[in-house]
Amino acid sequence: MTIATVGLLHPGAMGVTAGAAVREPVRVVWASGGRSRETRARAAGAGFEDLGTLEAVTAASDAVLSVCPPHGALALAETVAATGFDGLYVDANAVSPATALEIAAAAAAGGARFVDGGIVGPPAIRPGTTRLYLSGDAAAEVAPLFEDSALEAIDLDAKAGAASALKMCYAGFTKGSAALLLSLRAAASAYGVEDGLLGEWARSQPGLEKRSVRAAATAAPKAWRFAGEMEEIASTLEAAGLPDGFHRAAAEAYVRLAGFRGEPEGVAVEEVVAALLKPADGA
Amino acid sequence: MTIATVGLLHPGAMGVTAGAAVREPVRVVWASGGRSRETRARAAGAGFEDLGTLEAVTAASDAVLSVCPPHGALALAETVAATGFDGLYVDANAVSPATALEIAAAAAAGGARFVDGGIVGPPAIRPGTTRLYLSGDAAAEVAPLFEDSALEAIDLDAKAGAASALKMCYAGFTKGSAALLLSLRAAASAYGVEDGLLGEWARSQPGLEKRSVRAAATAAPKAWRFAGEMEEIASTLEAAGLPDGFHRAAAEAYVRLAGFRGEPEGVAVEEVVAALLKPADGA
Repeated sequence: MTIATVGLLHPGAMGVTAGAAVREPVRVVWASGGRSRETRARAAGAGFEDLGTLEAVTAASDAVLSVCPPHGALALAETVAATGFDGLYVDANAVSPATALEIAAAAAAGGARFVDGGIVGPPAIRPGTTRLYLSGDAAAEVAPLFEDSALEAIDLDAKAGAASALKMCYAGFTKGSAALLLSLRAAASAYGVEDGLLGEWARSQPGLEKRSVRAAATAAPKAWRFAGEMEEIASTLEAAGLPDGFHRAAAEAYVRLAGFRGEPEGVAVEEVVAALLKPADGA
Repeated sequence: MTIATVGLLHPGAMGVTAGAAVREPVRVVWASGGRSRETRARAAGAGFEDLGTLEAVTAASDAVLSVCPPHGALALAETVAATGFDGLYVDANAVSPATALEIAAAAAAGGARFVDGGIVGPPAIRPGTTRLYLSGDAAAEVAPLFEDSALEAIDLDAKAGAASALKMCYAGFTKGSAALLLSLRAAASAYGVEDGLLGEWARSQPGLEKRSVRAAATAAPKAWRFAGEMEEIASTLEAAGLPDGFHRAAAEAYVRLAGFRGEPEGVAVEEVVAALLKPADGA
């Protein structure tokens, strides 16, 4: 199958770089209907072709690339299937292998074939920073789309679910340990021993204070969507018979930080500690 | 009050170095009754005076120093109180602030005063590696005992519970993140993506593979006593209104590794992964 047109759902901060990484002359189309002003600006800047509606996008596309918050990934696949899309559905989201297989089933219900993906790294602006892992029978059709781009596509040569599993295990440490570190700093604050902890860290764990500051600065504005990802990771461990509590707790921590959505990067660790110690309304 | 004799309970791997750090001419006594051959050898090597029974030790001591696995700390305080010990009871164990206060109450029931302690670092063999944090009214009486020794005593000048809180928050990351990392490596193995994860770590998290290997090597033989410490840390976070799941999960992981007790350091990460994926009998 030749992929001449890719439908990008949606050009968020990560998605726009994935779309931009698709090699010429493959056409990248998207649907501006219902999208934010920020997303429209990003898509226009990248030169994607706006077809207005999801229906128009799926009708025009040989492959659809889903890049969205994990909690919306399955619903998006169902919406796409409802348009009768029968091309290649590539889910590149941070979901558990089990959710990936649900998404595969939803896509198949519309007639599409499925490729499982997982993106590791920041938005792919500079080459060498970001990987798109792919698995499933049709992965080999997708990888060449990103040849020589800032988004390195790696075909795991494994069944659907593997790329998602890899993403879960990777993010489970980076984002999970950030939540753990911030929660412990909050606990030290609650018990009045934060200075003592920072003093001990300075002596025996020299990177940790800076790491906690950086975790607060970068994670807090994105915490609203990390919570869903942590639940997916918890389910990934649970399904393998491993303890799921690390990431259920991380999800709870990130839910408490959801109020920082929209803040620029650089939220102070003191603000994050205060938010962690004040459970969300109704919690 | 002058402390002329310290009762050491017990000369385990950590305890023996704490006893050895007590400055001359303060006498260090212990009770060999019921202790292992290994502990006897350690105590003899350190030159502690063996008084045979706990009763003899508490009768002879102005202060008692408790260094034992966290799950035994409260029972030990109760046993000491039952001997009528009315000196200074120093609990240096990895327990939650709430457990520390229970230990304080148990010690007080026998007539003793209480000092809360928490040890951070490896057994204090070389100076500069290990701190004994102290809190509570009588902390200032204990700190000078360790002057110019390999075990640096730091009086937090805070109420009882603070030293335990500091220890919990510190170990909550070191041992908690080790359990997290090993659990995620086990998950990757379960999903058949361990090579992929190691490949991605090599590119973007260059320390993590080595860290997982080191965590397996050093934590597995001690996991049998880490489980109780993780439960204490979970309770510490819970009492502060923070998510406790990180450390409940870490406890569960360490319980699965309890079978490595007695192994020399250097357990292979593959063995640890296999043990994590095979829940303990009856679990």
